[in-house]
Amino acid sequence: MAKNTTQSKTSRSVTQRDAHTMKQLVGMADAVARTSLAYRDPSVEVPARTLANTTFNKKRRTLEMGKAAQTRNLFNVGQAKKFMQTMLLGSGVKSLIDAGKTLSLRGMYYKGLHTIPGTKEKTFADQDESDTILEDLEVSLGSLREELHLFAKKAGTMVGNITIIDSGDEIDCRRMGSGGYAIPSICEPDVIQFKKCDAKFILHVEKNTVWSRFNEDKFWQKHNCILTEGGGQPPRGVRRLLRRMHDELKLPVYCLLDCDPWGHYIYSVMKQGSINLAFESERLAIPDAKFLGIRAIDYDRCDLSDDVQIALTENDINRAKQIAAYPWFTDKKEWQREIDAMLKNGFKMEVESLITKDISYVTEVYVPERLKAKDWLD
Amino acid sequence: MAKNTTQSKTSRSVTQRDAHTMKQLVGMADAVARTSLAYRDPSVEVPARTLANTTFNKKRRTLEMGKAAQTRNLFNVGQAKKFMQTMLLGSGVKSLIDAGKTLSLRGMYYKGLHTIPGTKEKTFADQDESDTILEDLEVSLGSLREELHLFAKKAGTMVGNITIIDSGDEIDCRRMGSGGYAIPSICEPDVIQFKKCDAKFILHVEKNTVWSRFNEDKFWQKHNCILTEGGGQPPRGVRRLLRRMHDELKLPVYCLLDCDPWGHYIYSVMKQGSINLAFESERLAIPDAKFLGIRAIDYDRCDLSDDVQIALTENDINRAKQIAAYPWFTDKKEWQREIDAMLKNGFKMEVESLITKDISYVTEVYVPERLKAKDWLD
Repeated sequence: MAKNTTQSKTSRSVTQRDAHTMKQLVGMADAVARTSLAYRDPSVEVPARTLANTTFNKKRRTLEMGKAAQTRNLFNVGQAKKFMQTMLLGSGVKSLIDAGKTLSLRGMYYKGLHTIPGTKEKTFADQDESDTILEDLEVSLGSLREELHLFAKKAGTMVGNITIIDSGDEIDCRRMGSGGYAIPSICEPDVIQFKKCDAKFILHVEKNTVWSRFNEDKFWQKHNCILTEGGGQPPRGVRRLLRRMHDELKLPVYCLLDCDPWGHYIYSVMKQGSINLAFESERLAIPDAKFLGIRAIDYDRCDLSDDVQIALTENDINRAKQIAAYPWFTDKKEWQREIDAMLKNGFKMEVESLITKDISYVTEVYVPERLKAKDWLD
Repeated sequence: MAKNTTQSKTSRSVTQRDAHTMKQLVGMADAVARTSLAYRDPSVEVPARTLANTTFNKKRRTLEMGKAAQTRNLFNVGQAKKFMQTMLLGSGVKSLIDAGKTLSLRGMYYKGLHTIPGTKEKTFADQDESDTILEDLEVSLGSLREELHLFAKKAGTMVGNITIIDSGDEIDCRRMGSGGYAIPSICEPDVIQFKKCDAKFILHVEKNTVWSRFNEDKFWQKHNCILTEGGGQPPRGVRRLLRRMHDELKLPVYCLLDCDPWGHYIYSVMKQGSINLAFESERLAIPDAKFLGIRAIDYDRCDLSDDVQIALTENDINRAKQIAAYPWFTDKKEWQREIDAMLKNGFKMEVESLITKDISYVTEVYVPERLKAKDWLD
């Protein structure tokens, strides 16, 4: 078996993953049942998903959730509704796992929605309420949303020197034409396995229009890599797939994003995790990801014309300062300089603006030069 | 060669398609040059892309552009800028075709952007200005945007009983796992050819979360079809691919969309074309497409609970009335009744709300029953 190969193990992993999630779910339900049978107030512990309970682990270089937790009791007027919603969706997740099916977040909202008998009260006011409880369930059970058989809208495509197995189908990403393989929402090991990978790195670009340029120029063939995009801020499926390829196939991840606070933020989330759901970082963040560009210095270095300049708005400036103050950026002189340089420029630049040099400047000059010089931000 | 098979003909068609577009482009440029050399005022004719110049062709059942046109002269202060922008982008398109490359609309904006020598004037104020000129070029040249080697952001995925060739790569859509084949932006015959198709019809659904449900339940396998989604309002790539499969493979297209004005509008655009760009209908519209649901009557017919109800807003009500007044709907009693019934219900319903019956109700009961009973709107 080659070094970069993982054997297909669909059936076994399904059982393993689901068995773990089920154990957590049943454990939660059992605790509630035991308390009730003992005539005590049943409750669940929900770790606090707040900024105050989020810390940056300097050693692991990812965001982590602290130990603060809220208790939700049934016999507490302010907590009873959330307690019952948690039980309802927990039971919904159990039925999904039992059926071996997956459901969208919107679908789960509908699945849990009903009128409480004898009242006019609905179980949920809207999907936001249901989504929040599902996030609570994730952190309470220590299971990723994907392990609860839930998914959101998918986005993102992949091509490159890798063959994967998706739900038993062998997909050769070297032969995916101009369209590419659509990255699914759930990229857990029981769904996706890696078969044959010759690629030496992953190039992740922000937008699918840029991705098309790289694919059309056969960049991944010439540079022996995997080419991905995540439709802007990459959804969890894309982040999980990248993280798994990085870990399991030992592939470096280089990100080609816009020189603006949004591009920097995307990088921050891909690298360290998201503040909103620090819990997920453990399996989604890629602390070793590199920021390949666009860099503020490129305006001079690449001899760009002022056509590429998009003035920073006041909002951009505030965002940039916020990002510069993130604990994982404060220690990094290079990032401080980068954000400073962008603020001093007074303008943003998009990857697509390199077209002002030449249609294929980005694929034939910019990225190859950066890679060769190992010129990136960490 | 099987009936449903088109041979790969990449190289020849590229030449054919590009030769046609080039002929149009060079013809436009030649006319300008001839006029200039004769010391007369050079001009281009741009067909008017206005509602007033859009008619519904009852025989073809598609939207069509009328004969009204605007002349843009160089020696007219009000028209000179647009004339020059048209020449600039026309020349940009020519260089794309010469290079055999494609470019995003944003990329083309950057490609055309520069400061006019001796002034501080930019060729374009923003991308909207450039996009508008590109639409002008489409209609003036009688060439689809895709034929000008231009594309927008892509969206949409496909699986099912069909093998296609995309840029020389053979893609078996029967073995695309949970992710699927990402439908490219440019689906012209020189990029995509159909190889082996066993499917008997196409089921197109609105959202990719719903598509995932159908794919997971192997609907396309059980019902021998092709399953597509377009991420809401399908982009031109998806519409072009559906139209080509409909025409060339003789596959009926059934649309599963929400019961709301947005779903009805998506259907209208897929079927008759878009008012904004009636010119494209000829090669994008599918006048024989059918609306399979969700239907207003389903609330009673499927015995749904009030959990599925989403109240119509005032804006929804106005939109519904506008759509009912579209010339291609006014003659259709069934559509008038449908929109009436929705307005009388006072609520919208999403495809995903059928989950309140059962996770797989939509794939195992709803769609199979509608198809069997040939119960759809035309």
